[in-house]
Amino acid sequence: MTEEVSTEIETLGPCKIPNPMPLSPSCFVEDNTRIILRLNVDYLKAQLTQEKPVISLEVAGPRPYIYFDPSKLKVGIVTCGGLCPGINDVIRSLVMTLYYSYGVDRILGFKYGLQGFIPRYGHEVIELSPEKVKDIHSMGGTFLGTSRGHQPIEEIVDTLERLNINLLFMIGGDGTFRAANKIKEEIDRRGVKIGIVCVPKTIDNDIWLVSKTFGFNTAVEMACYAIRCAHTEAIGVPYGIGLVKLMGRHSGFIAAAATLATREVNFCLIPEMDFDLEGPQGLLCKLEKRLLARKHAVIVVAEGAGQKYVQKDPPEYDASGNLKLGDIGKFLKEKIEEYFKQKGLPVVIRYIDPSYIIRSVPANAEDRIFCGFLAQYAVHAGMAGKTGLMISYLNDQFVHIPIKEAIKKRKQVNLYGRFWLSVLESTGQGTLKNS
Amino acid sequence: MTEEVSTEIETLGPCKIPNPMPLSPSCFVEDNTRIILRLNVDYLKAQLTQEKPVISLEVAGPRPYIYFDPSKLKVGIVTCGGLCPGINDVIRSLVMTLYYSYGVDRILGFKYGLQGFIPRYGHEVIELSPEKVKDIHSMGGTFLGTSRGHQPIEEIVDTLERLNINLLFMIGGDGTFRAANKIKEEIDRRGVKIGIVCVPKTIDNDIWLVSKTFGFNTAVEMACYAIRCAHTEAIGVPYGIGLVKLMGRHSGFIAAAATLATREVNFCLIPEMDFDLEGPQGLLCKLEKRLLARKHAVIVVAEGAGQKYVQKDPPEYDASGNLKLGDIGKFLKEKIEEYFKQKGLPVVIRYIDPSYIIRSVPANAEDRIFCGFLAQYAVHAGMAGKTGLMISYLNDQFVHIPIKEAIKKRKQVNLYGRFWLSVLESTGQGTLKNS
Amino acid sequence: MTEEVSTEIETLGPCKIPNPMPLSPSCFVEDNTRIILRLNVDYLKAQLTQEKPVISLEVAGPRPYIYFDPSKLKVGIVTCGGLCPGINDVIRSLVMTLYYSYGVDRILGFKYGLQGFIPRYGHEVIELSPEKVKDIHSMGGTFLGTSRGHQPIEEIVDTLERLNINLLFMIGGDGTFRAANKIKEEIDRRGVKIGIVCVPKTIDNDIWLVSKTFGFNTAVEMACYAIRCAHTEAIGVPYGIGLVKLMGRHSGFIAAAATLATREVNFCLIPEMDFDLEGPQGLLCKLEKRLLARKHAVIVVAEGAGQKYVQKDPPEYDASGNLKLGDIGKFLKEKIEEYFKQKGLPVVIRYIDPSYIIRSVPANAEDRIFCGFLAQYAVHAGMAGKTGLMISYLNDQFVHIPIKEAIKKRKQVNLYGRFWLSVLESTGQGTLKNS
Amino acid sequence: MTEEVSTEIETLGPCKIPNPMPLSPSCFVEDNTRIILRLNVDYLKAQLTQEKPVISLEVAGPRPYIYFDPSKLKVGIVTCGGLCPGINDVIRSLVMTLYYSYGVDRILGFKYGLQGFIPRYGHEVIELSPEKVKDIHSMGGTFLGTSRGHQPIEEIVDTLERLNINLLFMIGGDGTFRAANKIKEEIDRRGVKIGIVCVPKTIDNDIWLVSKTFGFNTAVEMACYAIRCAHTEAIGVPYGIGLVKLMGRHSGFIAAAATLATREVNFCLIPEMDFDLEGPQGLLCKLEKRLLARKHAVIVVAEGAGQKYVQKDPPEYDASGNLKLGDIGKFLKEKIEEYFKQKGLPVVIRYIDPSYIIRSVPANAEDRIFCGFLAQYAVHAGMAGKTGLMISYLNDQFVHIPIKEAIKKRKQVNLYGRFWLSVLESTGQGTLKNS
Repeated sequence: MTEEVSTEIETLGPCKIPNPMPLSPSCFVEDNTRIILRLNVDYLKAQLTQEKPVISLEVAGPRPYIYFDPSKLKVGIVTCGGLCPGINDVIRSLVMTLYYSYGVDRILGFKYGLQGFIPRYGHEVIELSPEKVKDIHSMGGTFLGTSRGHQPIEEIVDTLERLNINLLFMIGGDGTFRAANKIKEEIDRRGVKIGIVCVPKTIDNDIWLVSKTFGFNTAVEMACYAIRCAHTEAIGVPYGIGLVKLMGRHSGFIAAAATLATREVNFCLIPEMDFDLEGPQGLLCKLEKRLLARKHAVIVVAEGAGQKYVQKDPPEYDASGNLKLGDIGKFLKEKIEEYFKQKGLPVVIRYIDPSYIIRSVPANAEDRIFCGFLAQYAVHAGMAGKTGLMISYLNDQFVHIPIKEAIKKRKQVNLYGRFWLSVLESTGQGTLKNS
Repeated sequence: MTEEVSTEIETLGPCKIPNPMPLSPSCFVEDNTRIILRLNVDYLKAQLTQEKPVISLEVAGPRPYIYFDPSKLKVGIVTCGGLCPGINDVIRSLVMTLYYSYGVDRILGFKYGLQGFIPRYGHEVIELSPEKVKDIHSMGGTFLGTSRGHQPIEEIVDTLERLNINLLFMIGGDGTFRAANKIKEEIDRRGVKIGIVCVPKTIDNDIWLVSKTFGFNTAVEMACYAIRCAHTEAIGVPYGIGLVKLMGRHSGFIAAAATLATREVNFCLIPEMDFDLEGPQGLLCKLEKRLLARKHAVIVVAEGAGQKYVQKDPPEYDASGNLKLGDIGKFLKEKIEEYFKQKGLPVVIRYIDPSYIIRSVPANAEDRIFCGFLAQYAVHAGMAGKTGLMISYLNDQFVHIPIKEAIKKRKQVNLYGRFWLSVLESTGQGTLKNS
Repeated sequence: MTEEVSTEIETLGPCKIPNPMPLSPSCFVEDNTRIILRLNVDYLKAQLTQEKPVISLEVAGPRPYIYFDPSKLKVGIVTCGGLCPGINDVIRSLVMTLYYSYGVDRILGFKYGLQGFIPRYGHEVIELSPEKVKDIHSMGGTFLGTSRGHQPIEEIVDTLERLNINLLFMIGGDGTFRAANKIKEEIDRRGVKIGIVCVPKTIDNDIWLVSKTFGFNTAVEMACYAIRCAHTEAIGVPYGIGLVKLMGRHSGFIAAAATLATREVNFCLIPEMDFDLEGPQGLLCKLEKRLLARKHAVIVVAEGAGQKYVQKDPPEYDASGNLKLGDIGKFLKEKIEEYFKQKGLPVVIRYIDPSYIIRSVPANAEDRIFCGFLAQYAVHAGMAGKTGLMISYLNDQFVHIPIKEAIKKRKQVNLYGRFWLSVLESTGQGTLKNS
Repeated sequence: MTEEVSTEIETLGPCKIPNPMPLSPSCFVEDNTRIILRLNVDYLKAQLTQEKPVISLEVAGPRPYIYFDPSKLKVGIVTCGGLCPGINDVIRSLVMTLYYSYGVDRILGFKYGLQGFIPRYGHEVIELSPEKVKDIHSMGGTFLGTSRGHQPIEEIVDTLERLNINLLFMIGGDGTFRAANKIKEEIDRRGVKIGIVCVPKTIDNDIWLVSKTFGFNTAVEMACYAIRCAHTEAIGVPYGIGLVKLMGRHSGFIAAAATLATREVNFCLIPEMDFDLEGPQGLLCKLEKRLLARKHAVIVVAEGAGQKYVQKDPPEYDASGNLKLGDIGKFLKEKIEEYFKQKGLPVVIRYIDPSYIIRSVPANAEDRIFCGFLAQYAVHAGMAGKTGLMISYLNDQFVHIPIKEAIKKRKQVNLYGRFWLSVLESTGQGTLKNS
């Protein structure tokens, strides 16, 4: 983490209304409660003795005074981007905390992501209440629906203004954060008082300045089932190969974590690493050795791995402006088949692409608790008039992070850290590079 | 069921050795204990009063006297064809029953299906004992491995003779039954005394004269998870379509049963039914109506459905001689995309092909119990010198069926029976035919 | 099964209204379609040649003509007795079939069992519609609530008359059947036209003339988890004993089936068998031998087993008039502790009583399908004016059974049949009797 | 956390042997790499500007040089105390890391906890190898077995010396840590070079200076199933009460976390809080209000809660010297029954004690990964000659903590922290204290 992180949180104005939550004073968190980002002792001492700044983060939590008057506040909630376990838990907890902790009873849910703000789509706006959301966490997916793609920022803010919404909660990933940022800029331009608070959602767990995103844990659990099946298939036939494509466009956390959890993977390929197919250290040659030695193999590949082999020319982009990835799973399947056909080794490849089955299940217990806290902290931040921020979990604590910082980078697997080294020890795959 | 079923079971010779199981006499089953195949009262009375034959089946169970001397017997076990939940339970129960009920302690497992009999593959032969198999049921797949494809019948019988195997248990589907039949003919030709007893294995549940095959139950349970995910995906976006391809080459039992169990499927397509894509009653038009009315839809398609649209010309066959099916799932996905592109309706299709995840899980409790019984009855039949038969579950009882009968037909979903009508009521899909 | 089964089904009157279901004529079932109860060929021939009666059962299914006019019909649904996986599936399918297949749109749900009919309890009556029940199957238990205990029959029929209900579906076990019988008698006495159709519900699977009740399958699956935990606990400490008490007041089907499915039980005790604690063949002595040989043991006991040791004197009865069972689980735990304390063997007993966790889960896929059919057939029977019957699954078919027959006996595990013998082979427990 | 934490780690001597792991130099961790324990910025600045010490912790990881010669090293592994999901994952990962990362091939497993060191018990010592442990993580419990209770420290060290064991890994909780401390003192007294490295195991998650222990996550998941069943039972009958007793002798983390994850609990009672039964704010009165308002209630109670009502006089202790807790679950059940009997409200209580089912399941994916890292770091510490320490996870990092610090206190739920406040918000239970 570099030094240039700007961690100041913007606010809509001073907080003058006492927080209605019946808490003893010590339970409220003051704005100047901050924790450090980097924990290394030597670094800290050096910074402080040289009177250089130490990067610190605003701690999340209920403030003693709030900005919005709950009786007058109207709140919006929207979910954007791909599905992820736990979205409904976040929606539910937002509504419950707004209603029961602050007494806010005008809460609107926008359907199908940013489309929900745009009149021409004709999607209804849903009034949300505790009664309406109390059971939604038993289902996967999002109760509000979602969509991908840009929508005109001005129209979005028009809708917010027209509906008198002063606080908008956006559940989404980096694409959503970019939209949130633009919405905030438009709000600033118009000089209206609308807070924007984000809850980071990305099944890939690839958001900068967030140690863990909700749903990741559940996704890894489900990925493990798929890998276990691939392993069963592989050992069931002579020269069986189980090939599992997992999510991970730019970051291989799911593939790596599932590899560690199952201990049955022989090759784990992620976007952060470069690998060769051909040559003595390449995947094909090492796979051949493995098959000859043990008669079966399991390969896990993140969807964004090996794009040098499959990227489209010219590149294509989806509705949200994300680069369309080439299909590395199918490519590997064909390359492997071709290679062993030439070698005369009768391999049997079982290719499994469980993505939709992984991401659309309900959250497990830990993610459920985690979602509950993320939403509560988002409400506390929003009620205190904070804006342009996301709730993050870092160094074992919930903190506020400016959205415009979060979108500067992407979190990736550190190829020299213990996490990835542990994957390499588990697979025994080595470098997969010829030089 | 037609009248021409021949239900006599062949034997290797008379049973003269008392069954060593410590059972009271009433617990043994005599060969002449038979149950009727067709239960309809009027039919029965008509047959009997006209002195016409009533088709009856030999009831399975331990015989008071057995043919083989357990102390001299050497047994072989082989698993063939595709994976299916419960194979390991069958292997385990065969070994346990042979060992503990009859005292047979020479049991060989052949690796990788029929390949295991052919010297040139070099697969090892495994000695099976209670200690070796006691935990294998906690894993899916087959402990022995399997393979597809024909192998020279003479070499197989050579191996049986060379290893002094007098009783062979074959776990497999109709392809395996055909091989079993040929092996038996070769055995008869050579005049050797080798019994062949089959345990029917087909995840499609499509074997003639068997009401239920093991693993089917577990497969339906897993298929339901996939459908639930497809439903979650479909409702998560505007005009979302969840498309799930399930197993079912010629018979749509899994697709139909999973449709009934989830109650979330709008279109269920199986091999037994013909359907049109185009036209006012065709799939595409009805799908459009559904999407406009409800904004989402779930389609389940068995792999063998709609082959008129995708069959290869000329037809291709796999190693076992099975017709290679065209990919109806991919075809439907493309056709649907194309149709709605023309219509200007921005549908989002989530295509899920969970086959390997369905078939490679361990068996659930009911299949586990069922596998245990199938194997026990197979051993009882084999020890009594019966040959050329499979163990079947019919009319709530375990019975013996000659293999050569079982391969005459394939069991399919009756499009006019309550089971399929119930599917139609659940989906509301109607005929999907224009005329 | 003895000969005295009376299998004629009563009706409220002739069916004159064409069945509104859009089925081809061959899909309807005529009343004279019957199947035989006993399948044994020799028995059948003997009966028929001697012109003696052959017991046959009316096959369930939609009749070509119905008794009630759907547009005028008002239906009631009530669930009684203990929880069982699948009750909500039955409620859901009753409502869906009444509404979509027959066009009945006045359906009332009575809360909390028979209490729901009695004004002084003040329980509300719920209007049921497809919208209201569409998701209830994702939850265990009963959406309508249940209760135990007798209620005044006259008041129940008063309520039915007052609310103009002409068809009542009762989901319950033998206690409920007895109440149903009395309600029917009172209805007959008053000369009103109210049909009573039952769906048998008993987690113990102990209803006479029913081969399988819904929820049983799911219950066995859950019981297996508990047994597996008991096994893990037992092997985790020196001389560890896992003791699991399962449901089964008079019939040990769950205990026996779970023993077969897990293959890890050393002693399975059920109500149908007598066993000694003391003496060389008694449980304690055999348990000691097992512990000395293997250092751990797993015991499964049905709640109704060994009542000779724990029955209360004088006997006590619960609100429904069922005999209160003594706590055999606790008794065994204490006896075993005492015995090994005397013997100086430091055993560690882990006692698990998972009953509420077993019975309150949602149904698995197979039970879900099964519940769907039971309810559909119940509606078909009720619409055809049949009364005083239950829907049963026997010989692989759905049939009608008069309630007054079903309550004459209780189904129990046959100690000389293959099912129990297979349990004995799996546990190796022997007779557990000294003489 | 107070200031007096002593965080220096003892070592057996200088590390002179190059670490054999094929890592690039930057991947090794130096001993002087430390992170701070308390992250608050103001506190940190105050300490540093006043030149007061800042508490810091040694970061775990492979050292560039190690103390032991792998080719000569003999290692012991023992598991003590109660079962917990993930023990087998830790054993497996210890063996794999010792064998594959360091080349240690003499690894002994002691059976049944500390008993395994004492000759008179006669428990065998098991040689552990990758082959032997490769599949053990698919089972719950501990492959090595465990036991409670003190054993003579001198005999334990005698056994270590006699078997030439120079490095002992102990998996256990605070009782085990106390034993480990004494073993280390005896080792120091004898002047022998034997390292003691602990992996903290406590399902209650109550170890001081550890943010999370393995298995906790899985336990909460399982506890949620039990609570969901209690909820289903409670809503299934009029005035139904689901009462679930969960683990938590001194710390209520499982009860609190499961309450947050399910959102269906109305009263959560933990050891850290005091509560009244009687009086207007007491449990019984509040429960009555809840029942009258909603007709059902769910209560979760940690086993150590409310001991003022049930503690034995005089106190009793188990074999390990732990205070025997009174049975608060049974006590509450009886008190509630009594209270409502007096009030004339016919409540139905379903009491569920799922402890053994919670703790003996296999670990979920996250715990599995976590166990893998804990064991790897334990091996790295042990190979570097560090002793008297445990591996801890704190502030998102793995660190070394001296055992003698860890046993000074117990981690408990902070009744004024966000975690517990969130539980109170979820249950709405209030203080449950009259004054």
